[in-house]
Amino acid sequence: MNKRVRHVALVCGLVLGFLTPIARTAAQQPPPPAGGGRGGGRGPVVSPEVRADGTITFRFSAPNAREVTLIGELDGKTYPMSKNAAGVWEVTVGPWPHDVYNYQFRVDATEGRGGVIAMDPANPSVKLGFGGFPPANLVEVPGKSGLEFDDAKNVPHGTVRIETYHSTSLGVPRTVWIYTPPGYDTNRTRYPAFYLLHGSGNIESSWMLTGRANLIMDNLIAEGRAKPMIIVNPLGYARQGVGLGPEVTQVATAPSASSGDTPFAQDLLKDVIPFVEKNFRTMPGADNRALGGLSMGGGQTIAIGFSHPDTFHSLVVMSAGATGAETTYPDFFAPATNKKIKLLWIGIGKDDFLLSNAKALDASLTAKGVNHIFRLTEGRHEWVVWRHHLHEVAPLLFR
Amino acid sequence: MNKRVRHVALVCGLVLGFLTPIARTAAQQPPPPAGGGRGGGRGPVVSPEVRADGTITFRFSAPNAREVTLIGELDGKTYPMSKNAAGVWEVTVGPWPHDVYNYQFRVDATEGRGGVIAMDPANPSVKLGFGGFPPANLVEVPGKSGLEFDDAKNVPHGTVRIETYHSTSLGVPRTVWIYTPPGYDTNRTRYPAFYLLHGSGNIESSWMLTGRANLIMDNLIAEGRAKPMIIVNPLGYARQGVGLGPEVTQVATAPSASSGDTPFAQDLLKDVIPFVEKNFRTMPGADNRALGGLSMGGGQTIAIGFSHPDTFHSLVVMSAGATGAETTYPDFFAPATNKKIKLLWIGIGKDDFLLSNAKALDASLTAKGVNHIFRLTEGRHEWVVWRHHLHEVAPLLFR
Repeated sequence: MNKRVRHVALVCGLVLGFLTPIARTAAQQPPPPAGGGRGGGRGPVVSPEVRADGTITFRFSAPNAREVTLIGELDGKTYPMSKNAAGVWEVTVGPWPHDVYNYQFRVDATEGRGGVIAMDPANPSVKLGFGGFPPANLVEVPGKSGLEFDDAKNVPHGTVRIETYHSTSLGVPRTVWIYTPPGYDTNRTRYPAFYLLHGSGNIESSWMLTGRANLIMDNLIAEGRAKPMIIVNPLGYARQGVGLGPEVTQVATAPSASSGDTPFAQDLLKDVIPFVEKNFRTMPGADNRALGGLSMGGGQTIAIGFSHPDTFHSLVVMSAGATGAETTYPDFFAPATNKKIKLLWIGIGKDDFLLSNAKALDASLTAKGVNHIFRLTEGRHEWVVWRHHLHEVAPLLFR
Repeated sequence: MNKRVRHVALVCGLVLGFLTPIARTAAQQPPPPAGGGRGGGRGPVVSPEVRADGTITFRFSAPNAREVTLIGELDGKTYPMSKNAAGVWEVTVGPWPHDVYNYQFRVDATEGRGGVIAMDPANPSVKLGFGGFPPANLVEVPGKSGLEFDDAKNVPHGTVRIETYHSTSLGVPRTVWIYTPPGYDTNRTRYPAFYLLHGSGNIESSWMLTGRANLIMDNLIAEGRAKPMIIVNPLGYARQGVGLGPEVTQVATAPSASSGDTPFAQDLLKDVIPFVEKNFRTMPGADNRALGGLSMGGGQTIAIGFSHPDTFHSLVVMSAGATGAETTYPDFFAPATNKKIKLLWIGIGKDDFLLSNAKALDASLTAKGVNHIFRLTEGRHEWVVWRHHLHEVAPLLFR
């Protein structure tokens, strides 16, 4: 490859431009006209258009609509859009800092209700969702000074593996997503394992495809800041998969809050962990097992982790909390816990709607003398926060 | 697990019901009320509702809309929907045979144009798309007599691996999805490799997450009908990824039709294949390399495969074709080709809009005496066809 082309290509890799929205192939179709197709009525709609200064223009063709609003995680606000003569609605927002933001378009709502939620047909980047949390589009504002902590840098990369296992607890086949660190296939090393749970509305792929956990870990490991580890993302619902089969609400052992022995917990403890420890080179023992999760997964971490202190010696609770946990898990809120648990990390954004729950958990742990870290970070209840939380907590694990 | 619970759970695994659309967790929330939430205005909208007889009811809440139409691959038709008193639009279709169908809702179009395309917020199962082919929802009609060729049966399962590599041809990091057959991690066997390309509007995950290639191969291998093989799914566009970076239209070697040496072809030949052969236990030589693809990927298979008969000795063209290929690739349309190519399989649905192109390719190969199989199957230009094509052609490979 000659130098000029290489330079152009490398720059292309750095600038996440979203400039060619239609499905073209170099093998079959000509390059787009320069400067064409910017939503002015000629050519396809380009959306989103991300500029170097961090501003973004969103566009959406809906000539028959009477009102379109940009909604999503964004910066916590919604934005009314304006229609041009070609029937394309448009709004420019920002500048925003580097991150990956979710959005959708809400069409013809009445006082914010009853409208239709539409995806951006010009943007192929999608966050998959579950049920009450339908899919949303993703848009990235690139870092101003180059590649960021969650970008694919030119460092050794781990592998993301999708494994199918048959859950004896739930009686259904399920998939689990597993990150193995760089070098896993060629060495004979054993690794600690971090069981990392998604939130309500996410699925087993969310931590990798939306949360970029694999890229965050690749970068931390390359910098020598995190220990190489295996990360395991099971599906957090007691069912076969998204849209597959009804939820399993009964298993042999009756669930109880204090045992954390729900159908999902049984799948995790009796199926997922044995599957991983049989098929992957894990280091043995609770010192080498961490359990963590965001939101609903943080709640599951509290329920399962606090009731199984001999299984996991590291616990990570993101954007979740609990009131009265000391009553539900009295054995955990005792001095003996400090001899077992190596890390109990609770992190939450200062604008998260669950902040009071997290503070309640922090207070009850403090009152009972249970060692823990409470991190009040920037952010609301969204993926922008959880990528940063993983980046912050992974270096603390298995030390 | 007691027998009754196990029985219930197993049945749950077999019947793909879509009956619990909201994001609930057994750990935190109560089971849904029996019979509740069927779109009657109480509780969340349930959609799609798949019945044992193969009929499906789709529902979509849009109280302010004046017209909603069910669109998608479906059975090739569109279906107007009717609004009930609660503002929920509804239509029942079918009965349809077992398969996985795509759909969306089109809202407030004028004579079929200018409307808004919406996803089904009650259905988490999604086909990811690219650019001009935005995401669509998926709905499965289960097989009447149990699990089908593309379901997760209780057989040994292969692994789907997502690998990140740095393309020297394109100057960007990219991901490639790779299926390794059951037993790959524990034996020392070498395997043939099938480079299987997606179509326009698909991405590197499409053959696995939408096409279920991994489950189809698991089942064929368990039945002894297909040779265990590695399947490699690169991204078919010469760019970093979906929504990541502009397309690379220039590489060091100027593309020409007869060499198939486009930027994507260079990435495949100079980056993907060397990456796979370095990092996976592949059998050496062109006899153990197959190239195939659907639609745009079928076109890429013709362009690259016909110009590299010493690299791939098996070629699979699904739902694609070419007129005048004998002029573009004169060396391939010659008797010597029959001494190299072990399998040249061309398959297309009888209702595919590219049927005439496929027939033209069939005719020109026949005229020049190039051995091949031409299979006219049921179906149009859609995933329903390609799952069946893979199921039919995989047993013929590497014999």
